[in-house]
Amino acid sequence: MGEAQPTLAEMRALLGDMPGPALEAGTAAALREAQLTKPAGALGRLEEIVHWLATWQGRHPPTAAHPRTAVFAGNHGVARHGVSAYPAAVTAQMVQNFVTGGAAVNQLCRAVDADLRVYEMSLDDPTADFTEEPAMSDADCALAMAYGMMAVEPGVDLLAVGEMGIANTTAAAALCCALWGGAAAEWVGPGTGVTGAALDNKTAVVERAVALHRGTTVEPFELLRRLGGRELAAIVGAVMAARRARVPVLLDGFATTAAAAVLQAADPHALDHCLVAHCSAEPGHRRLLARIGKAPLFDLGMRLGEASAATLAIGVVKAAVACHTGMATFAEAGVSGRKP
Amino acid sequence: MGEAQPTLAEMRALLGDMPGPALEAGTAAALREAQLTKPAGALGRLEEIVHWLATWQGRHPPTAAHPRTAVFAGNHGVARHGVSAYPAAVTAQMVQNFVTGGAAVNQLCRAVDADLRVYEMSLDDPTADFTEEPAMSDADCALAMAYGMMAVEPGVDLLAVGEMGIANTTAAAALCCALWGGAAAEWVGPGTGVTGAALDNKTAVVERAVALHRGTTVEPFELLRRLGGRELAAIVGAVMAARRARVPVLLDGFATTAAAAVLQAADPHALDHCLVAHCSAEPGHRRLLARIGKAPLFDLGMRLGEASAATLAIGVVKAAVACHTGMATFAEAGVSGRKP
Repeated sequence: MGEAQPTLAEMRALLGDMPGPALEAGTAAALREAQLTKPAGALGRLEEIVHWLATWQGRHPPTAAHPRTAVFAGNHGVARHGVSAYPAAVTAQMVQNFVTGGAAVNQLCRAVDADLRVYEMSLDDPTADFTEEPAMSDADCALAMAYGMMAVEPGVDLLAVGEMGIANTTAAAALCCALWGGAAAEWVGPGTGVTGAALDNKTAVVERAVALHRGTTVEPFELLRRLGGRELAAIVGAVMAARRARVPVLLDGFATTAAAAVLQAADPHALDHCLVAHCSAEPGHRRLLARIGKAPLFDLGMRLGEASAATLAIGVVKAAVACHTGMATFAEAGVSGRKP
Repeated sequence: MGEAQPTLAEMRALLGDMPGPALEAGTAAALREAQLTKPAGALGRLEEIVHWLATWQGRHPPTAAHPRTAVFAGNHGVARHGVSAYPAAVTAQMVQNFVTGGAAVNQLCRAVDADLRVYEMSLDDPTADFTEEPAMSDADCALAMAYGMMAVEPGVDLLAVGEMGIANTTAAAALCCALWGGAAAEWVGPGTGVTGAALDNKTAVVERAVALHRGTTVEPFELLRRLGGRELAAIVGAVMAARRARVPVLLDGFATTAAAAVLQAADPHALDHCLVAHCSAEPGHRRLLARIGKAPLFDLGMRLGEASAATLAIGVVKAAVACHTGMATFAEAGVSGRKP
């Protein structure tokens, strides 16, 4: 950044200087894939994963030996409007649960042998209530992005990204509605489990927020500042830093994808190094995936956040790499090829 | 079986003596699930998997510590009609590849820490050409089923089932068409990669076979004998033995599910202890899953067989169990529950 205090303008400038695909590595993956002892294409998306991994790591064979799961946690001023089934104190309580190893993501990281890092972002100081004013100042938003960039450290070869933040499906819905259009009701869902009148209230909150801010700007980073939250800004930063460091990214659910999609709104190729782990049961996620053109790996009805599905997907990426690197070729195994 | 040489009648009789669900274990799983630090239902099908595992293992907590992947291999007389893109010799060559560790399933078993067993079934002696006569005698079919039952040994707590057999998507399509109705073309697909005139030929072969045998019987085990193959009969045996031993089963793709579905045709609850790992890219699989009412865990465009997707699914089952057994409860973690 060059200065002690980053700005959104600097962050935007970084987006103009992102590495593209390493086509040779992708081609090398495809060439090896064609020689392995299986009908061409028979491993389906496992083959696609390997090609993507090689293309964005910029090497062949690709690796998934040092995955990291990064969970960003933030609190939201909009929580005061009763948009979640849980009190805002749960954000900090769940961070403590991550630290002591009792959350779903802890078990999943152990299951796939991923390094878990939890980034707690000023939980005692929620963002401003975005139904009244922008959630963050320019400096706060840029600082949160810079903080998120720290999740990408040397040695990490795959990054699973997720979040924890009571009320952040409200922020995600507002961000989606402002960025991609449509009615608030199309983006709002139960989140932690709000239904009936509480769900109507959540929709009304999103409507008010979008009406307040969308008139002022359509610039994606500015909408992130106005309607996002610190953990969502950190996700944007982490995804950008991963691209620069050639670390492919697995995106988790609705809130995480909504944050990352800020980048795609700014540059249609900005998420080419990202796969979406699953389609969340939160209904806005399916709509968002269609908008950004990403096919999820799983559709298991999960809607927990905290990088749970992205971490589960690490196991699939590891399995894909294991097949690609460990399988014998037709020649090595003495297996006959297709009939002439 | 009681006799040296089993018969299909004995196999059919076993089906009448299968254990049902252990409802208490399922209830215990649901009770614990409701206390874990996440919104109710937020782990989606991971919660369903745990409930299913407890219900069919008959204990709580359930385990997935000793999974086995069983791959049954057989050769088919119908291969002489050019229904596969590969020569029949590939079945034995791939078995050798399994033994030396070069196939996809070897890498996947390592990735999920599963015990791989490969069951080679008289590969030098293909079944009869079922366009002319039944594929197997009563005794041969029953013997293959009994052989499959051996895959379920003490200590195994989860069984992933798959197959290898050049021409066996032709057998699977014929079996499906005879059991579930519809036109041959609805059940026939590219398999290892046949297209155009070769695919039309494959469809015609299935039509001839079904026309020859369907008039004679609608009894599922008899159709298995006439239109199946040894590896498919072995899968039926393995699935039955797993039920009796309270070992939940992960079914692989089209050929495996087609074999297992023989049991469902005979008894609508016979596959309640089975989950289908994925929806294969082989088009008949989606149709079959709809017929038997099973929602697959994955839809990753895989179509390799050899228990590849079922083995990948072991990783998901293990992750589900890890969450269920390792997560803290709201009380343990001091996390607030839903707002009143």
